[in-house]
Amino acid sequence: MPEFADLNLLPPGIVVNTMKGDPGEHRAGSWLQWDGRLDGLSAALIGIPFDGASVVRTGSRHGPDAVRRSMMYYTTFSSAEGRAMTDLRAADIGDVQVAVTDMAGTFDRISAAIATLVRRGIVPVSIGGDHSIAFPLIRGVAQALGPGRRLGVIHFDAHHDLRQAHLGAESSGVPFRKALELPSGVLAGRNLVQIGMAEFANSPQLAGYAADMGVTVIPAGEVRRSGMASAVQRALTLAADGTDAIYISVDIDCIDQSQAPGTAAPNPSGLDARDVQDALRRIGAHPKVAGFDLVEISPPFDHDDMTGRAGAALVLNFLFGLSSRPAAR
Amino acid sequence: MPEFADLNLLPPGIVVNTMKGDPGEHRAGSWLQWDGRLDGLSAALIGIPFDGASVVRTGSRHGPDAVRRSMMYYTTFSSAEGRAMTDLRAADIGDVQVAVTDMAGTFDRISAAIATLVRRGIVPVSIGGDHSIAFPLIRGVAQALGPGRRLGVIHFDAHHDLRQAHLGAESSGVPFRKALELPSGVLAGRNLVQIGMAEFANSPQLAGYAADMGVTVIPAGEVRRSGMASAVQRALTLAADGTDAIYISVDIDCIDQSQAPGTAAPNPSGLDARDVQDALRRIGAHPKVAGFDLVEISPPFDHDDMTGRAGAALVLNFLFGLSSRPAAR
Amino acid sequence: MPEFADLNLLPPGIVVNTMKGDPGEHRAGSWLQWDGRLDGLSAALIGIPFDGASVVRTGSRHGPDAVRRSMMYYTTFSSAEGRAMTDLRAADIGDVQVAVTDMAGTFDRISAAIATLVRRGIVPVSIGGDHSIAFPLIRGVAQALGPGRRLGVIHFDAHHDLRQAHLGAESSGVPFRKALELPSGVLAGRNLVQIGMAEFANSPQLAGYAADMGVTVIPAGEVRRSGMASAVQRALTLAADGTDAIYISVDIDCIDQSQAPGTAAPNPSGLDARDVQDALRRIGAHPKVAGFDLVEISPPFDHDDMTGRAGAALVLNFLFGLSSRPAAR
Amino acid sequence: MPEFADLNLLPPGIVVNTMKGDPGEHRAGSWLQWDGRLDGLSAALIGIPFDGASVVRTGSRHGPDAVRRSMMYYTTFSSAEGRAMTDLRAADIGDVQVAVTDMAGTFDRISAAIATLVRRGIVPVSIGGDHSIAFPLIRGVAQALGPGRRLGVIHFDAHHDLRQAHLGAESSGVPFRKALELPSGVLAGRNLVQIGMAEFANSPQLAGYAADMGVTVIPAGEVRRSGMASAVQRALTLAADGTDAIYISVDIDCIDQSQAPGTAAPNPSGLDARDVQDALRRIGAHPKVAGFDLVEISPPFDHDDMTGRAGAALVLNFLFGLSSRPAAR
Amino acid sequence: MPEFADLNLLPPGIVVNTMKGDPGEHRAGSWLQWDGRLDGLSAALIGIPFDGASVVRTGSRHGPDAVRRSMMYYTTFSSAEGRAMTDLRAADIGDVQVAVTDMAGTFDRISAAIATLVRRGIVPVSIGGDHSIAFPLIRGVAQALGPGRRLGVIHFDAHHDLRQAHLGAESSGVPFRKALELPSGVLAGRNLVQIGMAEFANSPQLAGYAADMGVTVIPAGEVRRSGMASAVQRALTLAADGTDAIYISVDIDCIDQSQAPGTAAPNPSGLDARDVQDALRRIGAHPKVAGFDLVEISPPFDHDDMTGRAGAALVLNFLFGLSSRPAAR
Amino acid sequence: MPEFADLNLLPPGIVVNTMKGDPGEHRAGSWLQWDGRLDGLSAALIGIPFDGASVVRTGSRHGPDAVRRSMMYYTTFSSAEGRAMTDLRAADIGDVQVAVTDMAGTFDRISAAIATLVRRGIVPVSIGGDHSIAFPLIRGVAQALGPGRRLGVIHFDAHHDLRQAHLGAESSGVPFRKALELPSGVLAGRNLVQIGMAEFANSPQLAGYAADMGVTVIPAGEVRRSGMASAVQRALTLAADGTDAIYISVDIDCIDQSQAPGTAAPNPSGLDARDVQDALRRIGAHPKVAGFDLVEISPPFDHDDMTGRAGAALVLNFLFGLSSRPAAR
Ligand SMILES: [Ca+2]
Ligand SMILES: [Ca+2]
Ligand SMILES: [Ca+2]
Ligand SMILES: [Ca+2]
Ligand SMILES: [Ca+2]
Ligand SMILES: [Ca+2]
Ligand SMILES: [Ca+2]
Ligand SMILES: [Ca+2]
Ligand SMILES: [Ca+2]
Ligand SMILES: [Ca+2]
Ligand SMILES: [Ca+2]
Ligand SMILES: [Ca+2]
Repeated sequence: MPEFADLNLLPPGIVVNTMKGDPGEHRAGSWLQWDGRLDGLSAALIGIPFDGASVVRTGSRHGPDAVRRSMMYYTTFSSAEGRAMTDLRAADIGDVQVAVTDMAGTFDRISAAIATLVRRGIVPVSIGGDHSIAFPLIRGVAQALGPGRRLGVIHFDAHHDLRQAHLGAESSGVPFRKALELPSGVLAGRNLVQIGMAEFANSPQLAGYAADMGVTVIPAGEVRRSGMASAVQRALTLAADGTDAIYISVDIDCIDQSQAPGTAAPNPSGLDARDVQDALRRIGAHPKVAGFDLVEISPPFDHDDMTGRAGAALVLNFLFGLSSRPAAR
Repeated sequence: MPEFADLNLLPPGIVVNTMKGDPGEHRAGSWLQWDGRLDGLSAALIGIPFDGASVVRTGSRHGPDAVRRSMMYYTTFSSAEGRAMTDLRAADIGDVQVAVTDMAGTFDRISAAIATLVRRGIVPVSIGGDHSIAFPLIRGVAQALGPGRRLGVIHFDAHHDLRQAHLGAESSGVPFRKALELPSGVLAGRNLVQIGMAEFANSPQLAGYAADMGVTVIPAGEVRRSGMASAVQRALTLAADGTDAIYISVDIDCIDQSQAPGTAAPNPSGLDARDVQDALRRIGAHPKVAGFDLVEISPPFDHDDMTGRAGAALVLNFLFGLSSRPAAR
Repeated sequence: MPEFADLNLLPPGIVVNTMKGDPGEHRAGSWLQWDGRLDGLSAALIGIPFDGASVVRTGSRHGPDAVRRSMMYYTTFSSAEGRAMTDLRAADIGDVQVAVTDMAGTFDRISAAIATLVRRGIVPVSIGGDHSIAFPLIRGVAQALGPGRRLGVIHFDAHHDLRQAHLGAESSGVPFRKALELPSGVLAGRNLVQIGMAEFANSPQLAGYAADMGVTVIPAGEVRRSGMASAVQRALTLAADGTDAIYISVDIDCIDQSQAPGTAAPNPSGLDARDVQDALRRIGAHPKVAGFDLVEISPPFDHDDMTGRAGAALVLNFLFGLSSRPAAR
Repeated sequence: MPEFADLNLLPPGIVVNTMKGDPGEHRAGSWLQWDGRLDGLSAALIGIPFDGASVVRTGSRHGPDAVRRSMMYYTTFSSAEGRAMTDLRAADIGDVQVAVTDMAGTFDRISAAIATLVRRGIVPVSIGGDHSIAFPLIRGVAQALGPGRRLGVIHFDAHHDLRQAHLGAESSGVPFRKALELPSGVLAGRNLVQIGMAEFANSPQLAGYAADMGVTVIPAGEVRRSGMASAVQRALTLAADGTDAIYISVDIDCIDQSQAPGTAAPNPSGLDARDVQDALRRIGAHPKVAGFDLVEISPPFDHDDMTGRAGAALVLNFLFGLSSRPAAR
Repeated sequence: MPEFADLNLLPPGIVVNTMKGDPGEHRAGSWLQWDGRLDGLSAALIGIPFDGASVVRTGSRHGPDAVRRSMMYYTTFSSAEGRAMTDLRAADIGDVQVAVTDMAGTFDRISAAIATLVRRGIVPVSIGGDHSIAFPLIRGVAQALGPGRRLGVIHFDAHHDLRQAHLGAESSGVPFRKALELPSGVLAGRNLVQIGMAEFANSPQLAGYAADMGVTVIPAGEVRRSGMASAVQRALTLAADGTDAIYISVDIDCIDQSQAPGTAAPNPSGLDARDVQDALRRIGAHPKVAGFDLVEISPPFDHDDMTGRAGAALVLNFLFGLSSRPAAR
Repeated sequence: MPEFADLNLLPPGIVVNTMKGDPGEHRAGSWLQWDGRLDGLSAALIGIPFDGASVVRTGSRHGPDAVRRSMMYYTTFSSAEGRAMTDLRAADIGDVQVAVTDMAGTFDRISAAIATLVRRGIVPVSIGGDHSIAFPLIRGVAQALGPGRRLGVIHFDAHHDLRQAHLGAESSGVPFRKALELPSGVLAGRNLVQIGMAEFANSPQLAGYAADMGVTVIPAGEVRRSGMASAVQRALTLAADGTDAIYISVDIDCIDQSQAPGTAAPNPSGLDARDVQDALRRIGAHPKVAGFDLVEISPPFDHDDMTGRAGAALVLNFLFGLSSRPAAR
């Protein structure tokens, strides 16, 4: 299994009792089971159980397994579109090796794995973990693109995550500032779109910094008023403008706490989960989208894996979007 | 109490502390208390604590009692319409005798009880239990209608429940295929309408079977886009077309998991509970509607009986619809 | 600390670990920390941990602390409006001294504290406790207005709370009838607006009493159909008509149980929390609004303080409304 | 039903699904079902859902129903002794009418009901509710005994409950001081035995008051060292010395929090539930024991009714003790 | 993998993230990972996710996975004895194929799998599932022993499980009567020992039946008084007397509800978990012991897998006992 | 407040509603309230909300606040000994400043604070956080003792915590090996006693390392057999032998999971909490004991703060031991 060794991953394991349900049904969890080969893969689900930068409430290290457990409850078929996405070749290729107490080494392994995947034309679908991992993920995509290339980013979150540092140290609130500061400006402010900022969840300083950098912010209130479809349309246009690839980062706390209670900062004025599902399906279909992450699912604060299921639904919608690209079919 | 013996039911019990609240208030639980006589009843609430066909997660055998507990928190008065439904004669007449380990015998008792009620012009309002009971319920209605009669069915669910079998055995996923296969075609595909199918919750095979049979499917996404009112209008028209009676079957998992977490397959892209309440009120008012069930409420997976309350609200809206029929007033 | 003694309050305490987060961020909890002086305050958050009149399910005595705990998770900045409310001088000045077993004495202390605040031009933002406290709160505002003045009231609730008594005794269901019966008619029925009445949650008698008294009732169903903005517009016009001040009382159970499960009577057909947030922001901006309460948050029935967070979001939106008044800026 | 009216009780209701289990098994809940007649009863279970004096955490109003629910899971047969207690005539005769906001009236109804029972030679087994009800319960027994009679009391608790008042008002911490102060000294300090006082749960003032009054205190630590059997032996001797009857009052918080988590003040150094079960069985067999209460079970703080089951086990052991008296067999 | 096919099992799956912890530590979950071969195995862990005979509360179908999850938290080393059991060859070989709705077929597969294992000299360690599976398990051992052989059984439980039937059908309360009635009397009453019968948890009829059949009953109270060591000594002597093999069946509800809350019938007067651990270690060391099951762990009623961990500890102690047999070392 | 600045702590805050209860009662939380001066203090409670080295399950950063919340439910009076410990001068002086993402800096601040306290003759009572903090705590005590001095350590835990590293990085499993490796051998193996090692919770390698180093191990099983009193006697003798001071470190997971469920590794064969309480009281009275920590309380995995209360009880018993030293009285 040389490819496996190359990526330096831990196997995801077979979730217990995978054979529940009729074999003909294509359970999403079974569909995502990996045969150990990267050739031909269009998308790779990858767990990143790192929550070492959660400075308030943690537990997102258990997020990847919660999403995996939930996958066995779903199929690959969209009733709304009358189509299954089984033609898309996607697989759960395991976990990046994480040491909660060695952030630098962990981040290097994350970037290396993601760069390997993107270079092979595989869209990484990373499940965190806390939001700090967005930085090594974006860095990995940038490494794969190579020098002189440009990246757009669409970021769903209740928070800007543009802090400089937390008490002089790393935190889950810094990844997008660090991405804006990547060498040679691979990500410019005008190609970063942030959707879902909640009321009383951010500081004027960070909003000001976003404005100064030319970042486009679409607060949750605006999504409620104008609809998610127009927000997505606007975001894709901005993120694609002059860039070679688009990266998507989704913090589960952009969703209302009634639908995503299991997270560090539950959101009492969040987006409707069904709107975010629709958004990700549209986004996945865009040809420039080259990477995706879903972070901050924290099972210890959850009720009966509700938020794990919410996360699995987001991932499936994104994959369905991928499956509708001409190349994927 | 010969009527009681005839139906072969277990008494529902008086829920503890029924007298909470002012006596003048007509708590729904008190209003539904039975005097032991069937004459003059318009609707009969009946518990069916059977979850023996739940092949994944169970607990719906506790569903009827959860709905009953919740009834004491509600009245019979609609603030929106400024009318109470106390003129409607409805009662909780108890539980069908269930043996989890004897499905055939249990199903026979269910069909017999429902047929008795329908023959007397009483609308059975059955609280499950898992969805397998929809088959004996529909069979009971068909028996009451008699030979040559036709039935329409409106089915709210995240799933088609059109499986042939599960590992060669019974399951909660088969009732509507079994109903379509009832002798002499009492239920034709073109009179079956399924509302609320969720994304990644069904298989293309079953969707194909539904299409082949002429079943009308209104996925949850379509309800979100076009509104519940138009979905209900369309469903009633189809179910009433050439039929003698309409049966309604509601799987609580059609509702979003934030509003109905206590169920076997919580739904992360479900319908809004308030839309389903409105739908059942409209449907209850239709003169052909002759039977109703609400299934898959599973208290062990619930939080503080939230889903039991959601179920009670559905039942009350359906009964309110019944109460607005000319005959009922 | 003479002011403190005058109000006869218990200190709120500093919530543990107040310094979490960057100091520059203006956490709402820190912003609300009191320096012990009333001069210059525009709004005072005050806890009223009394649930002695909850005749069904209790626990709202823990409500004030749940809202306080949640405040540390929020800032003072609205992403939607691009403005912080730090110019508004607001503080958490502590708890009224409560003896669950001495309702009369407790109510006198509540009225005295509220009257003191209103006389000084401070808007009291009271966190209950059960809804019985609305009566001494309104009485305190009336005392501050003085003889011959008139009050309007906007009341968000699933229930009318217009009962005469419960088994011949006090309860959380009586405050608004008692307010309508205050001497010299300080509150007339035509200046009382009730928003959010739920289906099957009230009695025809109380609805009839409301109609007889000229009270305006906007049921939850109407808010769903016509929108919250128009409901608020209508309510403000009615409550301001011929009155000297408007009082706002919010029972958390007006909100859907999926977003506010921790309460005595969770509501399966409630308002959307985000609509109520918008409503309170508009209302807080009205120049006549002179007092506010938020009641019935019951942490023992909650999941991970979800309802405490929902309450904090409501309070922050109301304060943000206050901060947009010309005088406040 | 004149007897019923005389006692002024609310019916307990039949717990739902009483027929679960084989009919021949004598489920405790069925055995306790009342036929409406007091003649021939040896013991009467009675609910007192009053928690209006809980000044810290409440919810014990739900205690009686939690114990009732649990009763259906038990039989009347002791495996250890090879004997069923079905010969004992015992019944659940319902709830005292409680108004949380009218303590005096509620306490009068409690005393009246208990006096009626004791006068008829029926041992009342009262399920609270908070501990404040011990005072009207003891007062009712004293009324039944009549002038000049003397009472002994054995009190299991983590706390002395000998406070004078709480903020000048009633609380659940006062009943035994009020009992010691009953007119004509029906309860003398030397006939009061308190078992189970926990570490760091009481004040030196109250311990001093107990000592001054001649009360015997057996702390939990002493029970652990010397065994429950010797504590019970000593308590019965002291409580019977010169008295006409013995009353038993059990606060569930005497038991370790691992076995009784659902209570206002969970106890991290409590008694072993199995020791308390043995103690109550021995005590019930004593011919002078004329009344019993079990208080402070608070379901909202419980996990899956564990504490309700713990309470049912205590009641059954006490009843089994009663059944072993020569008269009872 | 012919052996696999022979047993007709579903693979257990690799539990996710098996590599947590230092590789040198021999996590129990890793130690139990199967290489697909039966040769040389001394013990085989086998899941039986069947709860179709639970007539009251279910969920034990999730029991095997809860025990498996917990295994990753344990090692193979006894600190008390200073020895690891890694020399014992044991493996988790997967789940029997279960159809909740086809009890007869499921039971046949259970017996066949167990007989295959016992014939090869492998001790089956079965994790249920509800207690009904004890019958096909014992039947399978009997089939392996062959005609004319005799079996002893030690049964830990709060209940006799000697019912004839439940409402004329199968239930989890019948397995030991069915075992006593196996053809040719492979299990005689005098070789059946039942340990842990709880108070008010059984009927006199079943106790009488046990006595009539010569079954030895050691109630929980006797274990508390005389100690578990003597109970085990007595049980082994009786079960071994004249028999060819001993079978062990453990219902988790024999343990106190504070230590095993996640079960259908939590036990408020149960055995101490640590005593049962010691007992199983002693029993596992007995050379005649040829099979073991652990049943009735029900995760939906559990708190954070506490009961799953309790179960894993029981299994490990039994295996440790096995490992101390001369042959095993 | 120079002393405060010197220690570099964050204030603990006043826990909300400190005045609950009668003022004369000396609630433990009020008793521990600090006046800001170190002079005259005998013991200082200090929070260390660091869980950055928890490599499996985290949440112990919330441990200090859970213990603080619980303190308001307790007094300072021992019913068993008839004495209050109010003469002991103890205070909660706040939290060490923690950055989860900067372990080295955090550990330096911990050691510095502890050294300052010990130099002043104040016994630090540290509440974690995860067990990794034991190393900087012991290092701080060693720094205060000065060169050439010797330390004994008594360590309660289910685990040895003698790992070298976890995946090449820090973890909560390493502190005691790091302590044994402190320069100049301040802690010798023969002065380290480990109490409570659980079955199947450790590796033979670490047990072997402990033996090689001369560490004394008293497994939980031995405590059950021989009693806690003799274990404590033996431990104190060994830890005091040739040393200048004794340090105590308590991992809450030494206690059975039924009494301490809220922790990273709940223990199904743990010590009885009441035994550990007794042990710490005895140990606190020993004149050489100079420091104490309590770690691994993880509120997110807890039920209603049960484990926080268990921790508060341990701390109070240790302080009570301190208060019985001649110097302290
Ligand atoms: Ca984020
Ligand atoms: Ca966020
Ligand atoms: Ca269904
Ligand atoms: Ca369904
Ligand atoms: Ca209200
Ligand atoms: Ca209300
Ligand atoms: Ca008490
Ligand atoms: Ca108490
Ligand atoms: Ca059992
Ligand atoms: Ca059993
Ligand atoms: Ca440790
Ligand atoms: Ca440990």
